[in-house]
Amino acid sequence: MPYQIAILGASGYTGAELVRLIATHPHMEIAALSADRKAGLEMAEVFPFLRHLALPRLQKIDEIDFAAIDLCFCALPHGTTQAVIAALPRSLKIVDLSADFRLRDADAYAQWYGQPHTQPDLQAEAVYGLTEFYRDDITAARLVAGTGCNAATGQFALRPLIAAGVIDLDDILIDLKAGVSGAGRSAKEMLLHAELSGGTHTYSAGGKHRHLGEFDQEFSKIAGRPVQVQFTPHLLPMNRGILATVYVKGDAATVHQTLTDAYAGEPFLRVLPFGQLPSTRDIAGSNFCHLGVIGDRIAGRAVVVAVLDNLTKGSSGQALQNANLMLGIPETTGLMLAPIFP
Amino acid sequence: MPYQIAILGASGYTGAELVRLIATHPHMEIAALSADRKAGLEMAEVFPFLRHLALPRLQKIDEIDFAAIDLCFCALPHGTTQAVIAALPRSLKIVDLSADFRLRDADAYAQWYGQPHTQPDLQAEAVYGLTEFYRDDITAARLVAGTGCNAATGQFALRPLIAAGVIDLDDILIDLKAGVSGAGRSAKEMLLHAELSGGTHTYSAGGKHRHLGEFDQEFSKIAGRPVQVQFTPHLLPMNRGILATVYVKGDAATVHQTLTDAYAGEPFLRVLPFGQLPSTRDIAGSNFCHLGVIGDRIAGRAVVVAVLDNLTKGSSGQALQNANLMLGIPETTGLMLAPIFP
Amino acid sequence: MPYQIAILGASGYTGAELVRLIATHPHMEIAALSADRKAGLEMAEVFPFLRHLALPRLQKIDEIDFAAIDLCFCALPHGTTQAVIAALPRSLKIVDLSADFRLRDADAYAQWYGQPHTQPDLQAEAVYGLTEFYRDDITAARLVAGTGCNAATGQFALRPLIAAGVIDLDDILIDLKAGVSGAGRSAKEMLLHAELSGGTHTYSAGGKHRHLGEFDQEFSKIAGRPVQVQFTPHLLPMNRGILATVYVKGDAATVHQTLTDAYAGEPFLRVLPFGQLPSTRDIAGSNFCHLGVIGDRIAGRAVVVAVLDNLTKGSSGQALQNANLMLGIPETTGLMLAPIFP
Amino acid sequence: MPYQIAILGASGYTGAELVRLIATHPHMEIAALSADRKAGLEMAEVFPFLRHLALPRLQKIDEIDFAAIDLCFCALPHGTTQAVIAALPRSLKIVDLSADFRLRDADAYAQWYGQPHTQPDLQAEAVYGLTEFYRDDITAARLVAGTGCNAATGQFALRPLIAAGVIDLDDILIDLKAGVSGAGRSAKEMLLHAELSGGTHTYSAGGKHRHLGEFDQEFSKIAGRPVQVQFTPHLLPMNRGILATVYVKGDAATVHQTLTDAYAGEPFLRVLPFGQLPSTRDIAGSNFCHLGVIGDRIAGRAVVVAVLDNLTKGSSGQALQNANLMLGIPETTGLMLAPIFP
Repeated sequence: MPYQIAILGASGYTGAELVRLIATHPHMEIAALSADRKAGLEMAEVFPFLRHLALPRLQKIDEIDFAAIDLCFCALPHGTTQAVIAALPRSLKIVDLSADFRLRDADAYAQWYGQPHTQPDLQAEAVYGLTEFYRDDITAARLVAGTGCNAATGQFALRPLIAAGVIDLDDILIDLKAGVSGAGRSAKEMLLHAELSGGTHTYSAGGKHRHLGEFDQEFSKIAGRPVQVQFTPHLLPMNRGILATVYVKGDAATVHQTLTDAYAGEPFLRVLPFGQLPSTRDIAGSNFCHLGVIGDRIAGRAVVVAVLDNLTKGSSGQALQNANLMLGIPETTGLMLAPIFP
Repeated sequence: MPYQIAILGASGYTGAELVRLIATHPHMEIAALSADRKAGLEMAEVFPFLRHLALPRLQKIDEIDFAAIDLCFCALPHGTTQAVIAALPRSLKIVDLSADFRLRDADAYAQWYGQPHTQPDLQAEAVYGLTEFYRDDITAARLVAGTGCNAATGQFALRPLIAAGVIDLDDILIDLKAGVSGAGRSAKEMLLHAELSGGTHTYSAGGKHRHLGEFDQEFSKIAGRPVQVQFTPHLLPMNRGILATVYVKGDAATVHQTLTDAYAGEPFLRVLPFGQLPSTRDIAGSNFCHLGVIGDRIAGRAVVVAVLDNLTKGSSGQALQNANLMLGIPETTGLMLAPIFP
Repeated sequence: MPYQIAILGASGYTGAELVRLIATHPHMEIAALSADRKAGLEMAEVFPFLRHLALPRLQKIDEIDFAAIDLCFCALPHGTTQAVIAALPRSLKIVDLSADFRLRDADAYAQWYGQPHTQPDLQAEAVYGLTEFYRDDITAARLVAGTGCNAATGQFALRPLIAAGVIDLDDILIDLKAGVSGAGRSAKEMLLHAELSGGTHTYSAGGKHRHLGEFDQEFSKIAGRPVQVQFTPHLLPMNRGILATVYVKGDAATVHQTLTDAYAGEPFLRVLPFGQLPSTRDIAGSNFCHLGVIGDRIAGRAVVVAVLDNLTKGSSGQALQNANLMLGIPETTGLMLAPIFP
Repeated sequence: MPYQIAILGASGYTGAELVRLIATHPHMEIAALSADRKAGLEMAEVFPFLRHLALPRLQKIDEIDFAAIDLCFCALPHGTTQAVIAALPRSLKIVDLSADFRLRDADAYAQWYGQPHTQPDLQAEAVYGLTEFYRDDITAARLVAGTGCNAATGQFALRPLIAAGVIDLDDILIDLKAGVSGAGRSAKEMLLHAELSGGTHTYSAGGKHRHLGEFDQEFSKIAGRPVQVQFTPHLLPMNRGILATVYVKGDAATVHQTLTDAYAGEPFLRVLPFGQLPSTRDIAGSNFCHLGVIGDRIAGRAVVVAVLDNLTKGSSGQALQNANLMLGIPETTGLMLAPIFP
């Protein structure tokens, strides 16, 4: 019998992406879907693209019988998630896609999210969900905190380089280009088609983006001393995909070799031959992350470009990968779908 | 001294388009801009693309001194417009871009807009603003009602054909493709980039779109008997532009000749050679409407395709064209800007 | 052991889409890929989005050992396909995605394609590949001719209506909106991003589009007398998807009921509740076709809207569905992937 | 009588953009248009969006009577331009939009363009066309070499900073995002809508982009010593616009003040208040360049973002601005068109 899955917050893009992926997963069955304001609706009314699936009707969270659930994905907004997860049965495995449990440190959380954390015990318990680097912890965890999509992209480019000590830790720069689905299905003027299509601009520039909290936490932990990176996200007229152009000081060939070695056995992380750089069009809709490295005419400079789909590898695909580990299912199950192109 | 212009509802797309056009108009000066919820802001804060212009700060309507205004464009939402215009000084010339005064008949208004008209006297006074067909009335008018953008497109394709009696009045079909700016700058989920880009769907299909009220009124008036057309609008992943594919029964060559003759002297309406059909990319940002006619392998069928920019010729450009007439300025002044391509 | 599959013409979009779909098919293995000008390259060099797959290197057709192949997909250009297929071993099952074998009649072929057919025996042998209507023939066939993508969309909307006699056969109109991938991966000025994005226009209008040959053939066969439809395709700034707005004269409720009954057991054809119309965004990347019916304020008119993904249900997905039948595999195998949204 | 203008290479995007701009220029008249392969066609056949203009038919260059021409815009491909310009009458004022005369140094030209310059005398004569920094030279020039569009964007962000000595000259990084029209109207697979829309990737990364030749030349000249910047261009799914994110080491407030002071009197260069960054949507179709500066949480870092329209301020608008100077016309004539939004 397949594992019984609940998805809280199923009316957002990451919730729908979880349903899309689980739909072809051989060992999971969606048993409950919640959406507070849309409770009572069929999922097909909220997301007609899922019309072909037999899915439970959307419920309020307190209507769900969690005794019948093996694992719960929580795709709720930041902030409200803490209380919801605290109220769930302790027997439930939980993969959280919000930002609430990404930061291990209470002060860091308060700094980046502007309010104290209300569930410090859960914060202490949660495992950071960057699968390729926390596999054992995730396998044993009850509560896994999915990473930020931008944070995942930057870390795939940088973690092995910081760990290997092959780049200057004081001069790392991430210029990131993100598709609009990362902003969610919220009716905001700035996300309208007429506002966004055909143009680009920065957002949360100047050291203000919250995913910097994750970069700080993880890079400092790896380096064994404080590391701060510079980070400028840009919004692009595309729905899916993140491209991070990461500028480092170090030998480009060494950088490339370090990444190649680090990801040699990884099913989802693919390092291109030296000098080739990846494109977001080649990973859309998939759980793959492509990485490339190039040098510069200025000696001692290297550029790492990493691309992934923010809704898949950056969020719901990562979450499913983690859930597989937590349930003892082979890690790639349900995740080897090819990208869609064109 | 240039004419002093006020724009009510300047925080929407049609308001901003008016500012864009008037910016290079030699005989008009923008003296007042209103935006209820954004009163107090600079226009450049609401529309940074207008940053280079010296413009008055946004005000509430009742803060405007209309004694200093020659002509007022009213780009307010449907419904609220009636009361606003009724409260304006009678000495003011007004070009209304809302739907409130398009329908001459009180019952028709109530039918299509779901509520009785509150200003029947103004409704009786207003002139329908399809410039090429109401030039004399507009020149003499105090209050001109701008047409619907879809309604304008369909009428440019059909009015001469109905007037000349060269098509079957009982079998007219308008399949229309519209860009998203026609829906305005309103934060709705259905207008998000992530929802719209890369796809298409119908809206208000099945005889429900309100611009049918205009088609009914105008076509029946021309024909001297009731005429009802079939009309299916589609939303496309483009910001500007309408393409109306109009299916008629009649001789295609005659249809083409009729349109060619009707628009021979028109500066903004251009009929392509027989057999050529126009593209929206060729009119974006301009006040031009291109029309083409083609026959079919089935005898007695013709297809007329009309394209225009919904924000320019379909709305703000038309409004400026009418304002020119009302102020005694040459009709094309400020409106001969070339389209933008690519 | 899985069935061994060859794909001829793997460097085009339909070839790549076949690879994408077969990648997760449990009973097929890609044994050979051909691409004339790109022979010698890895598939990942031509389509980097397939980088994660272990695939045979691209070959010239005559380098392929067809003795080891069970079924061959032929995704070559129209015209050249005939000779290629004639030279393949008779023992090979073939699904052709070109236009070469769609028309049963030699004269019709010559009329629409401008040259005589060079393989009349194969033309006589080929089965028309619209799966839902030729299941038995396809199951028994050696050579199946995939339909045009526009032709498939229009037929899904119309075949049951013509068969049931519930619409006027002399007044059928298909206004179709198509994404650009249908034009293939050919370097033409008219297909450039700068030319297409943000605009729309017709193509092959006026009864000239070659898919009319398929409509004529199939509709006349069903009706038992000549049927000619009017057909206007439009190119839209989207990569995948076709939306056909089909105008018929008949009772809308009857039209809806007829389609609902006809497709009740079909896994890929889904008729929405009466009055709801589908969107292309809801089928992108999938083998589903959604259909909707609405009436009009004018009695006796109905509009049927059908949407599908031109590369999947309109081409490569259909081809795989047919291949499943020809190989005795359950028809939906490998084809139940959910659409991608957003 | 207006100045008589010729445009060589009128069948490309920059040629068409020149026509668009000159169409509303009060003191210029287009007297000749050349397009080698399209000679004999009307401009409206090549660019239907210019249909409303009375324009000379396209000719071959040697058919043009240059005696009647005051100023010639040369929008021909790189490489072929040299010989063409050498053959033009010496009495003719020329604004070249190609790359052929941008680099002052023969060796630098050979290095970046892979072949020796064939017209060293003209190379020596040509003035670099970055208007705001070479006004006097341009006013007096016979031959002006338009800058690269990326090169212009980066220079607007950096020149005053290098001149004022407020940034570290050895650590300048330009991460640039460019729309596709910059690649021209050439039928290449990589420029297809199906390839580009909805994704992004780098191009000419790693110190290989030819506009680096211009950066090197200009920045070294200003600094009085060699300056090399790092430069990574990205292609975005948008038609017009460049956004350059420029990373410098220096005090952000000083950087902002330096730019503000430098551009205080410039009609087309607009520096936003400190901490605000510009968007490409706000300059599309116009000759404006918006610049913004923000600091970082890491002290001593600043980010300058500059946006402009590659076809206007980055190419044809700049060319017209230079032509105005060369002809003694006020510099902003014909160039104050507002951007188009949305």
